[in-house]
Amino acid sequence: MEESVVKQERAVRTRALVLRAGAEVIAARGYEGATIAEILAHAGVTKGAMYFHFPSKQALAEAVIEEQTSISAVPRTMSRLQDAIDLSQRVARSLQHDPLLQAGTRIAVETGFSEEPLVPYGHWTEMFRSLFTAAKEANELLPTVDPKETAEMFVASYLGVQLFSQAATNRADLPRRVEGLWRHLLPGIAVPGVLGWIRPQGTEERAEETFDDMHEDVASPT
Amino acid sequence: MEESVVKQERAVRTRALVLRAGAEVIAARGYEGATIAEILAHAGVTKGAMYFHFPSKQALAEAVIEEQTSISAVPRTMSRLQDAIDLSQRVARSLQHDPLLQAGTRIAVETGFSEEPLVPYGHWTEMFRSLFTAAKEANELLPTVDPKETAEMFVASYLGVQLFSQAATNRADLPRRVEGLWRHLLPGIAVPGVLGWIRPQGTEERAEETFDDMHEDVASPT
Repeated sequence: MEESVVKQERAVRTRALVLRAGAEVIAARGYEGATIAEILAHAGVTKGAMYFHFPSKQALAEAVIEEQTSISAVPRTMSRLQDAIDLSQRVARSLQHDPLLQAGTRIAVETGFSEEPLVPYGHWTEMFRSLFTAAKEANELLPTVDPKETAEMFVASYLGVQLFSQAATNRADLPRRVEGLWRHLLPGIAVPGVLGWIRPQGTEERAEETFDDMHEDVASPT
Repeated sequence: MEESVVKQERAVRTRALVLRAGAEVIAARGYEGATIAEILAHAGVTKGAMYFHFPSKQALAEAVIEEQTSISAVPRTMSRLQDAIDLSQRVARSLQHDPLLQAGTRIAVETGFSEEPLVPYGHWTEMFRSLFTAAKEANELLPTVDPKETAEMFVASYLGVQLFSQAATNRADLPRRVEGLWRHLLPGIAVPGVLGWIRPQGTEERAEETFDDMHEDVASPT
């Protein structure tokens, strides 16, 4: 009984180790460039231990994509539109250092060119669609806004802004560029009355939780 | 004399052949994935002939980036803002089949992650900055618009929309998504009076010139 709990804890720890190592190697080398061998060396686990959790590199990539949205808790202000902005700015700050989000970008971009894209945009689109739907129900958005279309346009534009910022300043100016994107988009989606209230730079000072915070107990193999 | 003209023509033809083959291979395999050997086989030229024009894969990539904006002549309507939209829609249609533009996207994305990005966004940003500057001088844009900032935001967002469309529909819905991007951005940049006049879907029926049209005389090695 005691032994099985230990085993379970070890399995959870191993999975987190491999996921983090996978994210770090993919963030550095790209999805195509990342090899199983390097991920194993980085995680300090055996091939068998990895395959128990992730039977393939694709399965690992899917877990990276899944995990990056699951750790991004939606903020909660007086406005659903502001919540969407705050989420996007929180992600922007995390993208500057979090390998999980950085790996997600590389997976999204690289697999988009393949025959069977992993469609990693889906989770993000769904989060923003849901926020825009709530914002529209609260009469924060113009009646012409289609939450799904606006969510897809926003997630797509955000990806491009991120890649541009990556090339220009290694993402140092990403929060400022995301603020600029919102400033350009807000008059086309928000009702005039809320425009003066909304802060495109976000209302949070810094990221409250990151992949590192979540998993700091399994930060490195001993 | 006659002989040197023939030589010159042959050199121009070889350069165009290699450029086109390079674009096609990079569009299909990515910048990292493209090998000199495959480009040579595809172009049907010798290594020496290629290196005479392009001393490295990077030089070839730079020529691809240079060429793709040089063939994109700016449209000319009554409005500079409409010209910018028409240019973006012409590029959207060309991206559906033109390997030169497709290769440019892959070079942009892949080299953005490297230590020394080629900054391939520069040419596009400059074209749109110039159009937005003219539109602002013609009082088509709001006084708050900074043409350079808006150009960078637009080029970045456009890249993301393109990658999203690539993953979702192999770019089949790209013109519609570019129209959606403009619909979202226009109220934030255009003065209200011109909004009803501007067509975010573009005013041109189809692309007037493409890489294929320009170079059809050197379409394939005999």
